[in-house]
Amino acid sequence: MRNFLPKEAETMKYTEQVTRELAHLYCYEEVITPIVESYDLLAAKSGEEIRNRMYAFNDLGGRRIALRPEFTASIARLIATKMMNEPKPIRLYCCGSLYRYDEPQHLRYREFWQSNYELIGSNKPEADAEILILTYDLMKRLGLRDYWFKIGHVGILRGILKEEDIAEERQNQIMQLLDNKRWDKALTVTQETGGSKTATTTLKKILETRGKDVPKILNEAKSVVSNYDSAVDAVENLQNILDLVKESGVKFEILIEAGFARGLEYYTGMVFQPYVPELEREVGGGGRYDKLIELFGGEPTPAVGVANGIDRLVLAMKKQKVLTKTKAERRVMVIPIGEEMRAKAMELSLMLRNVNIPVEVEVVGRTVSKALQDADRRNVTHTIIVGPGELQEGKVVLRDMRKRDQKTVEITTLVDSFEREKYAR
Amino acid sequence: MRNFLPKEAETMKYTEQVTRELAHLYCYEEVITPIVESYDLLAAKSGEEIRNRMYAFNDLGGRRIALRPEFTASIARLIATKMMNEPKPIRLYCCGSLYRYDEPQHLRYREFWQSNYELIGSNKPEADAEILILTYDLMKRLGLRDYWFKIGHVGILRGILKEEDIAEERQNQIMQLLDNKRWDKALTVTQETGGSKTATTTLKKILETRGKDVPKILNEAKSVVSNYDSAVDAVENLQNILDLVKESGVKFEILIEAGFARGLEYYTGMVFQPYVPELEREVGGGGRYDKLIELFGGEPTPAVGVANGIDRLVLAMKKQKVLTKTKAERRVMVIPIGEEMRAKAMELSLMLRNVNIPVEVEVVGRTVSKALQDADRRNVTHTIIVGPGELQEGKVVLRDMRKRDQKTVEITTLVDSFEREKYAR
Repeated sequence: MRNFLPKEAETMKYTEQVTRELAHLYCYEEVITPIVESYDLLAAKSGEEIRNRMYAFNDLGGRRIALRPEFTASIARLIATKMMNEPKPIRLYCCGSLYRYDEPQHLRYREFWQSNYELIGSNKPEADAEILILTYDLMKRLGLRDYWFKIGHVGILRGILKEEDIAEERQNQIMQLLDNKRWDKALTVTQETGGSKTATTTLKKILETRGKDVPKILNEAKSVVSNYDSAVDAVENLQNILDLVKESGVKFEILIEAGFARGLEYYTGMVFQPYVPELEREVGGGGRYDKLIELFGGEPTPAVGVANGIDRLVLAMKKQKVLTKTKAERRVMVIPIGEEMRAKAMELSLMLRNVNIPVEVEVVGRTVSKALQDADRRNVTHTIIVGPGELQEGKVVLRDMRKRDQKTVEITTLVDSFEREKYAR
Repeated sequence: MRNFLPKEAETMKYTEQVTRELAHLYCYEEVITPIVESYDLLAAKSGEEIRNRMYAFNDLGGRRIALRPEFTASIARLIATKMMNEPKPIRLYCCGSLYRYDEPQHLRYREFWQSNYELIGSNKPEADAEILILTYDLMKRLGLRDYWFKIGHVGILRGILKEEDIAEERQNQIMQLLDNKRWDKALTVTQETGGSKTATTTLKKILETRGKDVPKILNEAKSVVSNYDSAVDAVENLQNILDLVKESGVKFEILIEAGFARGLEYYTGMVFQPYVPELEREVGGGGRYDKLIELFGGEPTPAVGVANGIDRLVLAMKKQKVLTKTKAERRVMVIPIGEEMRAKAMELSLMLRNVNIPVEVEVVGRTVSKALQDADRRNVTHTIIVGPGELQEGKVVLRDMRKRDQKTVEITTLVDSFEREKYAR
């Protein structure tokens, strides 16, 4: 598990704030769900790989619980139980830490952060398009470049397997194998579970149907799966979604993978992952999950969403050097000369903070010259030196640490002089 | 564990943001520490009660870990290991969720949120005063009223017990009993562990030394403990701290409890808890802990800090009805008439979001009249209806939902008309 020291923590919180502002602009309302939930809830439909890697344990009351490995199950529970009477569509946002017990490896941490957007109650392609556009908008607002989206539709593979009468459990197994790029094994299992020769040939071909020329690849995919009506429907649904994105004027690079199987069992439609060239792994991922909410006892409710990895986005921003420098801000240090001046120093600090100026007070009992040295190291822009002589006349010494000059000013005009300076710049 | 639906989540996040802004104004830098840490680290000096109530478990690698029950141990570890070379003082802020396995009871939840401020590297009373002032400032900025601070100094009780040569472990036991208001038992244990008659008499009297007249109570305390030099020092330290607060012009009600023992074993000096009349329990708590950082292998480093309960502060704000109403903000819904208009609706939405107007798009395929009904329910202030007729002329219908009137406007002037309206209000 990681610690984020001040500089890194600032970037994490900045990025979180951008995701929150985006939620506001797209009218996604924030909810907070617990980090600890029942194991059964979190395990439902999350996929074998995630189930095996959950932080699960028994609490003091003997209940089987776990740290959430992702947000979507919690959101589905919320919709099915606490928000069932809310008018649809419901747009929800959440942001926080998640847990997976991975062997430590590049870009995989046991504690990681995501911002999550879920659009609940629409089965229309415009809902899928909104999630894609929102994700693109986030990448753009963070200043990232050269990103692309890997996009597919689990209905293509599922459509083939379903029409071959392969049971859902075995479908999940095959999808998992495909997601792990164990193609040969996936094809073997398909055969073993009664898949026809056409099925394996079609699967083999569809796995090779990938590329960046969207209309061309989608047409190829359609002809590859032409024996399987529901797989054809899936390709057409994906065509509709991507047409909407394109016609709405949004442009980003797309890599279609017709055989794309994301690891989570609950996806039922379009699936995608955004990438940047500098990171080997995706910076987020999402898709449509129309069956999950009813699994938690809710009405059948279509839904589509995306989770973006805050820590991965931060890493991408670092690698692309697009981190906006924090603007040079005023920062004041108030230094009392001698113990008698300490209370006055605190009083002046409060006065300045009340007009939104960040102020630290000298609290270690150092001499003025030691404190000034420290102020330099901390990028303090102004110091205020409170001495008994000046104070008797209602004044203090105000020192500009950048210009290295100082003047004696009336306490009553101190705030004003900061304000004037602000507008002069 | 609780879920926070949109309205509640908004208040939680607002309060968190106020604590973060306060950190900025007092120059406390944010750090992020893991929610899961080694059990031994979190158990060190946290006090028996907390140790017994931790969410502890073994991870898949067989390590004993736990969910953090409070922040201070993690911060002390950070200072001792990752920040040992930073110049002192160090001011750190953190904010997040914490976990204690309590039987559910009023105001005690298993998952709760705190904002934490730690001032590290000063043993001076002005550091203690800063933490008190900062906590007062937070209550004020949140709009709370009638709050008071219960304040004491663990050096008073510890000073008596130490000079009676009672071992630290038994001191901890006695402090814990006192914290749980089991006074008789505490006195019995003091006697059993070799405490003199003077000790029990002094303890009995000091437990009764409490009240709101600060100078009077502190003088009484001093005379009660006059046989114990280090207890006298503790009272004088507390006097110095509270004199500084008072002289700096900050006014809040104080209840001195000379026998105040907070539950955490790591406290060594001033301790306090803020209260509001509407809640039975404290809304925060803090104090000085000069021995904790060396326990984690750091240099001996004095420190003082405070943790404020975000969810309790929110509850206090609710009870005092001081929650600032969210200002009536513009919120737009874009409604396409028919499928052909969907992409254009999304394009216009993006355009408006780019000038920071929150926009939701109709994605459920409803008729205009159904969508308008829904817009009313959601406090949408403006709807934009995108129809083929107007669009051919480069126009859309802009409807003011509050005034219930609508006009046809050029798309090119749409942003401008929102901007004009903003300044007109």
